[in-house]
Amino acid sequence: MNTFGSNFKLTTFGESHGAAIGGVIDGCPAGVTIDEAFIGQELKRRREGDTPSAQTTSRKEADNIEWLSGIFQGKTLGTPIAFMVRNNDCRSADYEALKNCFRPGHADYTYQEKYGYRDHRGGGRASGRETVARVIAGAIAKQLLKDQGISFHSSVNEFLVTCTILGIPAGVGEPIFDRLNAHLAFAQLSIPSAMSFTMGETPSSWQLTDFADQWNDHGKGDTLTRTNHCGGIQGGISNGMPIIFHVGFHRPVTQPDGMICRNEDASLQHVAPHGRHDADHSSRLPVIVESMAALTIADLINLKNNR
Amino acid sequence: MNTFGSNFKLTTFGESHGAAIGGVIDGCPAGVTIDEAFIGQELKRRREGDTPSAQTTSRKEADNIEWLSGIFQGKTLGTPIAFMVRNNDCRSADYEALKNCFRPGHADYTYQEKYGYRDHRGGGRASGRETVARVIAGAIAKQLLKDQGISFHSSVNEFLVTCTILGIPAGVGEPIFDRLNAHLAFAQLSIPSAMSFTMGETPSSWQLTDFADQWNDHGKGDTLTRTNHCGGIQGGISNGMPIIFHVGFHRPVTQPDGMICRNEDASLQHVAPHGRHDADHSSRLPVIVESMAALTIADLINLKNNR
Amino acid sequence: MNTFGSNFKLTTFGESHGAAIGGVIDGCPAGVTIDEAFIGQELKRRREGDTPSAQTTSRKEADNIEWLSGIFQGKTLGTPIAFMVRNNDCRSADYEALKNCFRPGHADYTYQEKYGYRDHRGGGRASGRETVARVIAGAIAKQLLKDQGISFHSSVNEFLVTCTILGIPAGVGEPIFDRLNAHLAFAQLSIPSAMSFTMGETPSSWQLTDFADQWNDHGKGDTLTRTNHCGGIQGGISNGMPIIFHVGFHRPVTQPDGMICRNEDASLQHVAPHGRHDADHSSRLPVIVESMAALTIADLINLKNNR
Amino acid sequence: MNTFGSNFKLTTFGESHGAAIGGVIDGCPAGVTIDEAFIGQELKRRREGDTPSAQTTSRKEADNIEWLSGIFQGKTLGTPIAFMVRNNDCRSADYEALKNCFRPGHADYTYQEKYGYRDHRGGGRASGRETVARVIAGAIAKQLLKDQGISFHSSVNEFLVTCTILGIPAGVGEPIFDRLNAHLAFAQLSIPSAMSFTMGETPSSWQLTDFADQWNDHGKGDTLTRTNHCGGIQGGISNGMPIIFHVGFHRPVTQPDGMICRNEDASLQHVAPHGRHDADHSSRLPVIVESMAALTIADLINLKNNR
Repeated sequence: MNTFGSNFKLTTFGESHGAAIGGVIDGCPAGVTIDEAFIGQELKRRREGDTPSAQTTSRKEADNIEWLSGIFQGKTLGTPIAFMVRNNDCRSADYEALKNCFRPGHADYTYQEKYGYRDHRGGGRASGRETVARVIAGAIAKQLLKDQGISFHSSVNEFLVTCTILGIPAGVGEPIFDRLNAHLAFAQLSIPSAMSFTMGETPSSWQLTDFADQWNDHGKGDTLTRTNHCGGIQGGISNGMPIIFHVGFHRPVTQPDGMICRNEDASLQHVAPHGRHDADHSSRLPVIVESMAALTIADLINLKNNR
Repeated sequence: MNTFGSNFKLTTFGESHGAAIGGVIDGCPAGVTIDEAFIGQELKRRREGDTPSAQTTSRKEADNIEWLSGIFQGKTLGTPIAFMVRNNDCRSADYEALKNCFRPGHADYTYQEKYGYRDHRGGGRASGRETVARVIAGAIAKQLLKDQGISFHSSVNEFLVTCTILGIPAGVGEPIFDRLNAHLAFAQLSIPSAMSFTMGETPSSWQLTDFADQWNDHGKGDTLTRTNHCGGIQGGISNGMPIIFHVGFHRPVTQPDGMICRNEDASLQHVAPHGRHDADHSSRLPVIVESMAALTIADLINLKNNR
Repeated sequence: MNTFGSNFKLTTFGESHGAAIGGVIDGCPAGVTIDEAFIGQELKRRREGDTPSAQTTSRKEADNIEWLSGIFQGKTLGTPIAFMVRNNDCRSADYEALKNCFRPGHADYTYQEKYGYRDHRGGGRASGRETVARVIAGAIAKQLLKDQGISFHSSVNEFLVTCTILGIPAGVGEPIFDRLNAHLAFAQLSIPSAMSFTMGETPSSWQLTDFADQWNDHGKGDTLTRTNHCGGIQGGISNGMPIIFHVGFHRPVTQPDGMICRNEDASLQHVAPHGRHDADHSSRLPVIVESMAALTIADLINLKNNR
Repeated sequence: MNTFGSNFKLTTFGESHGAAIGGVIDGCPAGVTIDEAFIGQELKRRREGDTPSAQTTSRKEADNIEWLSGIFQGKTLGTPIAFMVRNNDCRSADYEALKNCFRPGHADYTYQEKYGYRDHRGGGRASGRETVARVIAGAIAKQLLKDQGISFHSSVNEFLVTCTILGIPAGVGEPIFDRLNAHLAFAQLSIPSAMSFTMGETPSSWQLTDFADQWNDHGKGDTLTRTNHCGGIQGGISNGMPIIFHVGFHRPVTQPDGMICRNEDASLQHVAPHGRHDADHSSRLPVIVESMAALTIADLINLKNNR
């Protein structure tokens, strides 16, 4: 339930205001050099966004990674890589007002319905803070894939994050259920506040009457097809062209003027603003989108080698 | 690879022009009455569409189901339910011209790259014919869920299939990776020619500035929230409101005037029209979308009972 | 539940007196030539035993295999291989007396407790007949592994089946939970009437005071170690020596003089002999033990290639 | 690979001389009270054995558990429970002599063959120290199952650990591959140095001519059957009688007088005694056997509720 992947697997743990956030990566090959500086940069992108502004979150997380296992003298051992980041800047008292009520547009209500018991502080497990573990693991996946010539690029446009993956060889993905596009969609929709996933060169490629990408002539073109409407995947399997997809996210829902919350007895009450929150998280999303894409590819590339 | 689900599992098999198309359902509880008439109607929706027209496929498939196991005196045994539909109307010779070349916009090229060996007739495994098994299994999942008050509805609009699921209780779905929306996206993107997946009351709900669905006042409203922008899922878990999502499909790519194919040596050639094909498959899609949604819910509802 | 393996996967279906027994193999590479004569010989070993005698079962099963998918022009396609064997010689009426009672030493009672509904004829799903699917799939796994120089050998001694696997390279198996010996034990204990599993050159190797296998000197021996007490596995991973293990089975429990059965109301009754049964099934066991070993290795060798 | 279970899942991490040993439990229900004193007692059984003697290991591990997530105000949240125990008493220098050579009877050689890179200190990942995580998770599983009336008991006899599980209702286990006995065997054989697994009231039950356990007469006996030769499992499913099985372990292989090791160039050398080791670990095994049994039942009981 808290594990992503079958071959290159990430299991995450941690509540927003608990002792720590962390994860265990299982299935990373032995002998990969860990570049801690690169991982630090990726965490910085998550914390401050690609285009830092006064709008982004005010949480001053140290994000110091403790490596617990799986690395010996700077290289992976092939055994599970466990890591954690302690939660230091926790003003849990800010959340006392939310102890017995559910915010609109958050997961407070559904967690209570599912588990009957929850950590109300800072969203508990259902907090953006959980993406720290995704970014650390994604950074390791990127390093692993970089050696195979695979790279990840993304940009924000009209709140549509667009991601391009270069260097994927033809043949990645399985034909029926375990399609590469289905796995990418699964990974992206697992990001908090993700609402839509679209394959293709442009977000509306799929509406074209002449959707089929025509072959380039023998020796006359340097790419397989003239267009890339399909976004690099045919029949669920990569064709060697760039993989292109778009992910839509809804806006942050924490209201600066406070909000009307639902109590356990179904009555409503107004709750004043509290805690940390983002007015705009869009510049922080690209690194998370790329991280989930990297985890997906690291998992499925293994599947392909399998044959 | 050819299995969908973890608890209510469907494994499918069969090539378009092989002996048969079929599947094995594992995890269906014992004692469920099988309504063969309903399954037949669902297959008819797949074959002829919800609004039959001269445009839909000309393949006259008998679609006679042979039940091989798991059913005794009209009820499920709790053991695997195996079924198959023989492929009778196979004019395989029509496909000889395609033996050594790859059509544009199809999976011919990617299959060859992945496996190095393929059945070129009628798309082989990568044929819409494979969805027969999904519809049969989906119909069984619908019967199972109907007893729990869950129903599936869909419609076609501007080539956007919209699907609504009624009766899902609060608490279905897992919070981090195994979110209900992520599983729905995975299931829908596994349908041939699916290109996009969007959650929410309207396809552009997620772009709203006031995205958060406000609670209905205690005793004054009969639904949990006033709007349903989130489409019934918060933090990956159902909240008890209707589940609403949209799936975009590209148009069929088989060209009536023939097409430019790529040979194994990368040269191009013109190939004349051949075999069966759809000019428009949109009216056939709703039953497939609903079937995949039903398989997803049957699988995850079990997960929920699990706790 | 009815699937064995993660990479080379077998899903079986069928009740003893239902329409058919069969299976679906998912994960078999493309291009493997299917030797139907060899598969027929393996089924003959299952039916008649390695040393046929008047004691072995009298069921004259035709065991004609129908291939439903995954094979094209005699070679595997890399897609799911579905097969079935119809149940022809079913004297179901023989079992009417057992409809409402539970035999001692059989699974009648536990199935009823678990599912609340069962096919009482010939043991239903809990019949030795289900091993037909295991032997067919095992024979395909053997063909696949033969190309890699791996072979399976077994013999019966004091009702202890001993199995030796030759040609396994060092490095197969995972260190902590997914140990090669643990997977072999899981596979063997899944055979009906299996009761014990023991690793090692001799069944009591593990009781030795000097258990550690000493290394052969550099250049002086042609095997890695002087002895093979550990049976070719250290720390859960193969070391390149022959893999040796032993499986103990209890005797068939169908009594020729009839038996005391338990009714649903917990009262007892005497039931006269009925149906087909084995007085001694030991000579039929080796091919089943080898088949499960071959399925295990085909599944884990894939895992190894994965790295 | 480092995960045990499908519903109640344990993922372990850590090398013997790395920063920490730990694990993540996923799938534990919300609201379970954590009894830290009981967990401490179980760890003490692992450290000192049920019958402490001068023979048992001299490692003075503090075994202080740090809880990282999943517990709030003394109760489980239903989210992943992460924990770790730091490795304090590591005299890694003791192992320098073993850096480039492989001990007989250990996993040094197979790890090197598999990964090409290893942590040579104290066995690295292939150390008995890894069982700390199993015992902590097993203790939590025991607490969860205790509420359902299920308890675990074991004893050592002639180096055969015998384990009895009381309170398992009829119907646990799946019929074909996922049999309860197969899962128990898988779990037990995953314990370092386990060599054999046997079901049944006595270790040689399965050799009896009259193996079938006869039913107790209606109202005259308080147990289902008169004997329990099958050890409480029929057709892979529990029948409600006590579950009884036996696990055989080989003796510790670290020799007090030193040993002949194999170098990477296949030459041999004598290495003097080093580090910590056990002369006899038998009294420490019961708690590990029980822990793995508890993890198995916690995982499969969930599966059963699933229906």
